[in-house]
Amino acid sequence: MMKTLLAKPQWQRLFPILNWGAAYNRQDLGGDVTAAVIVTIMLIPQSLAYALLAGLPAEVGLYASILPLVAYAIFGTSRVLAVGPVAVVSLMSASALAKLGLETVSDYVAASSVLALMSGILLVAMGALKLGVIANLLSHPVIAGFITASGVLIAVSQAKHILGIKASGHTLIEILGSLGQGMGQVNLITLLLGLAVLAFLFWLRRGLSDLLQTKLNMSKQMAGTLVRIGPVFAVIGTIALSWAADLPSFGVSVVGRVPTGLPPLGLPQLNSSFLTALIGPAVLITIIGYVESVSVAQTLAAKRRQKIDPNQELTALGAANIASALSGGYAVTGGFARSVVNFDAGARTPAAGALTAIGLTFAAIYLTPYLYFLPTATLAATIIVAVLSLVDLSILKTAWAYSRADFAAVFITVVLTLLLGVEIGVGAGVATSIALFLWKTSRPHVAEVGQVPGSEHFRNIDRHQVLTNPALVTLRIDESLYFANARRMEELILERVHQGKGELRHVVLMCSAVNEIDLSALESLEAINHQLSDLGIRLHLSEVKGPVMDRLKRSHLLQDLTGEVFLSQNCAFQKLTSLSDP
Amino acid sequence: MMKTLLAKPQWQRLFPILNWGAAYNRQDLGGDVTAAVIVTIMLIPQSLAYALLAGLPAEVGLYASILPLVAYAIFGTSRVLAVGPVAVVSLMSASALAKLGLETVSDYVAASSVLALMSGILLVAMGALKLGVIANLLSHPVIAGFITASGVLIAVSQAKHILGIKASGHTLIEILGSLGQGMGQVNLITLLLGLAVLAFLFWLRRGLSDLLQTKLNMSKQMAGTLVRIGPVFAVIGTIALSWAADLPSFGVSVVGRVPTGLPPLGLPQLNSSFLTALIGPAVLITIIGYVESVSVAQTLAAKRRQKIDPNQELTALGAANIASALSGGYAVTGGFARSVVNFDAGARTPAAGALTAIGLTFAAIYLTPYLYFLPTATLAATIIVAVLSLVDLSILKTAWAYSRADFAAVFITVVLTLLLGVEIGVGAGVATSIALFLWKTSRPHVAEVGQVPGSEHFRNIDRHQVLTNPALVTLRIDESLYFANARRMEELILERVHQGKGELRHVVLMCSAVNEIDLSALESLEAINHQLSDLGIRLHLSEVKGPVMDRLKRSHLLQDLTGEVFLSQNCAFQKLTSLSDP
Repeated sequence: MMKTLLAKPQWQRLFPILNWGAAYNRQDLGGDVTAAVIVTIMLIPQSLAYALLAGLPAEVGLYASILPLVAYAIFGTSRVLAVGPVAVVSLMSASALAKLGLETVSDYVAASSVLALMSGILLVAMGALKLGVIANLLSHPVIAGFITASGVLIAVSQAKHILGIKASGHTLIEILGSLGQGMGQVNLITLLLGLAVLAFLFWLRRGLSDLLQTKLNMSKQMAGTLVRIGPVFAVIGTIALSWAADLPSFGVSVVGRVPTGLPPLGLPQLNSSFLTALIGPAVLITIIGYVESVSVAQTLAAKRRQKIDPNQELTALGAANIASALSGGYAVTGGFARSVVNFDAGARTPAAGALTAIGLTFAAIYLTPYLYFLPTATLAATIIVAVLSLVDLSILKTAWAYSRADFAAVFITVVLTLLLGVEIGVGAGVATSIALFLWKTSRPHVAEVGQVPGSEHFRNIDRHQVLTNPALVTLRIDESLYFANARRMEELILERVHQGKGELRHVVLMCSAVNEIDLSALESLEAINHQLSDLGIRLHLSEVKGPVMDRLKRSHLLQDLTGEVFLSQNCAFQKLTSLSDP
Repeated sequence: MMKTLLAKPQWQRLFPILNWGAAYNRQDLGGDVTAAVIVTIMLIPQSLAYALLAGLPAEVGLYASILPLVAYAIFGTSRVLAVGPVAVVSLMSASALAKLGLETVSDYVAASSVLALMSGILLVAMGALKLGVIANLLSHPVIAGFITASGVLIAVSQAKHILGIKASGHTLIEILGSLGQGMGQVNLITLLLGLAVLAFLFWLRRGLSDLLQTKLNMSKQMAGTLVRIGPVFAVIGTIALSWAADLPSFGVSVVGRVPTGLPPLGLPQLNSSFLTALIGPAVLITIIGYVESVSVAQTLAAKRRQKIDPNQELTALGAANIASALSGGYAVTGGFARSVVNFDAGARTPAAGALTAIGLTFAAIYLTPYLYFLPTATLAATIIVAVLSLVDLSILKTAWAYSRADFAAVFITVVLTLLLGVEIGVGAGVATSIALFLWKTSRPHVAEVGQVPGSEHFRNIDRHQVLTNPALVTLRIDESLYFANARRMEELILERVHQGKGELRHVVLMCSAVNEIDLSALESLEAINHQLSDLGIRLHLSEVKGPVMDRLKRSHLLQDLTGEVFLSQNCAFQKLTSLSDP
């Protein structure tokens, strides 16, 4: 009985569909269907394009936009998040697989699925262990720097499709070098087509939205949605042109034969020797994908006073990636642009995602024959326009203005991502953020304080006119005491005592800003107590916080302390002054 | 002119010998000579033994105890630190060189010198860049765990010399397995001799000191010094016995032929392919050696109200290691036992170290022929007794009682050092300490506060009877806001707003314990401000510290904030309550 009562919320937590599904009504269906139609139209060119970016056949992008959406609809806690292939994860997948040196396309497709499977298993495991907090190690500057640098890398990597040449590489220098070598073979018709599509897509973003709002009095949301499904017109137009003028015979690269229907479900087959090489990239794709997805979900949920469960999101994204791997797709996550479109188009529940999956299934079955003549330059132009909106170098300026430490983290992430690739870029950015945080907390602000005359306040002697006593030194430490600053604290106190010559009898540490004292700091306090005792100086503490005091009571420090623990700095000053004055 | 004035303190800083050397007098000389004689007698067996532990011929220990002492006397800032070979660094050197698979003894000796040279260069570079703070990453629990585990490893590794068998390995399991295989070949005479020396040395430590103090009324210092030079009697006694009874003919292993005199000065020659393999171990030896040395120097300096300069200590230890490498020695650092003996014996200046170097030069020239018959079991017993005093498992108990996080760091360091070796042990310990610190600060204590009736104090609503207002929520965050807790703060605030239903109009963040707000946290605050604004809720800040406010003024937050920044929480509560009450 008890078990059943407890079990129900547990099931509802694991399957959020049980919550919203039970209350599903006709109004919800209306909103969801409209959103699904619009998102389907938007997703078709996007999923083909991102598959190209990941180095995969175009249809793999469609496969990755079907079952993952159904899985997310069952397990996800965001009502509007739209999952599927996204630019940054596609780039990371391509970069990871390039290192394996696979020879056939089918091996490459299988390896992409395996990578999605590993990422899915990692996400589910992190969800079960509630390890979503690991994503907190990615600071905003590192994410911003990484996204910007990835956007540049992706745009540059797609230039080869616009130019109609062969090029390769995964760092800025490699790609630019490779492009330079191929410049002799530029295909002029491809270039003209590519530039025309680019111009059209840029006009969609810049010009069309204004036009729709001013001339047709369209709402901003509506105009934004039309702009975002615009690329489908470029796709239709260039397919028609390519077919009518038989562009492939002029050397224009096209998507070519695409299998009709869906691939069979099943585990991807890959030589197990490649598995270890994929673990590192899988971890990184998992964390980056999760951070991107949760940020989008949280932003949109807050707009409707809804909330998401970050740990359940791990399970949901894990299920989506596993579903992708089992159905011939590759790594997926929640995407920003498509989720915003879904939201603006009126999606009310995750059923919109499941309906979008139905739309894409139709596309995979009935539309694929028409993709034969689609120029890859069209898809490349779609990618370039999409990722250039991610490039935001102003983060460098913002960070520089706000703090040098944050600037260092962005700068290192941007430069190393461009020059050495995405994995080293993010790794170095995270390491820099952590190192700078440790550095800052290892050099806490320490002030020698004295009494503000006629008050119970104690302030920095360097900034205020305060009363002091040569027999007494009070140091206020503005940081928790832990291993990285314990030794510095010892040095500072001994340094100050060294200046104090013979008169000094009491040292007081004012602990009002000390949120924690770890074992290293405790042992440093014991050492200082002992060393001061050898010099005939007593060590006191004042304003120790409750939780810190509780912990100190479990140690020997309070018994061994030569001085006292004062409730307030004022008590300490009054008593020690009266003791030292004759 | 100006340049000369500035240059002088700079020179004195780099060569502390210029400070104490100028004031050197007869009284100093008396203390230094006495200390040097006693330390020389103590160092002869110790340096031979530690060379054995490092897998080197015994005389290398003597070479490492001559020029390094002179170099430290010139550059060092501690008046009493005694440098030379020490147990833990010898173990680390042996562990690093084992991986190279060197075949000849001369290659092994050269590689040891190269390791010392690399460490010396690193130390000097860290000194020049003032990077001594890197050592702060080693928390007390990690150091204590590492020293204890190393002590166990060293003691176990020396058992083969007491048993008279061959054994190898660098982890506990390897060494015990290797000892087990050799148990059939135990040499009984070696075993008896080894046990006798062990018994004598333990009696020296435990019994002699008491005896001298109680029967002869000797001071504790004096008794301690005699105990520490005791091993030299074991050396003399077993050499005599070994010579008289011709123990080598019974299969007892002895030191054998030792070259007389000193090796020529010069750079060690080593195949450059080994250099990269030595970089990692060199970094670790550098940091561990530096931490050990500075702790000893600081403890002893404080006793005489002297001080040391931690950055100059890097230069001094670097010079000592370079001197060691150029004169046929190996990695050295400041040792605890010998520095205490030097201090207790009355050393007054670093000249005591230079005088000790003269003593050891005589030993290298005139005493080496007598070492032929010295049983290696005697040296092994010396090592075992010395390192067992380092083993202190009580740190596990202390850490457990004080905090689980500190316990985890000690436990992981001890277990991994024993099972996987010193490098992995220390690396994992440091990583654990940092991860747990980030973990703790990523989950700060956050309290919802209300007004204590009739006062201006605001306390936790869960612990105190306080006044609140349904239109107003105040959250006090007890930690600096930075990337690792920024997202959690967003979640907490939205979670709380979600509970507040429709009545909530104001959220106040009370920042009295916030020492810093980094760019990630700033962007989270901007996002929260925006999201709350969408819900018709205003965000306010109260009690923001001066330096934090200065930084916020460089951002857009203060312009964009929907609410106000209040000087005190009381102002915020009064004003917002009056606004929301009709």
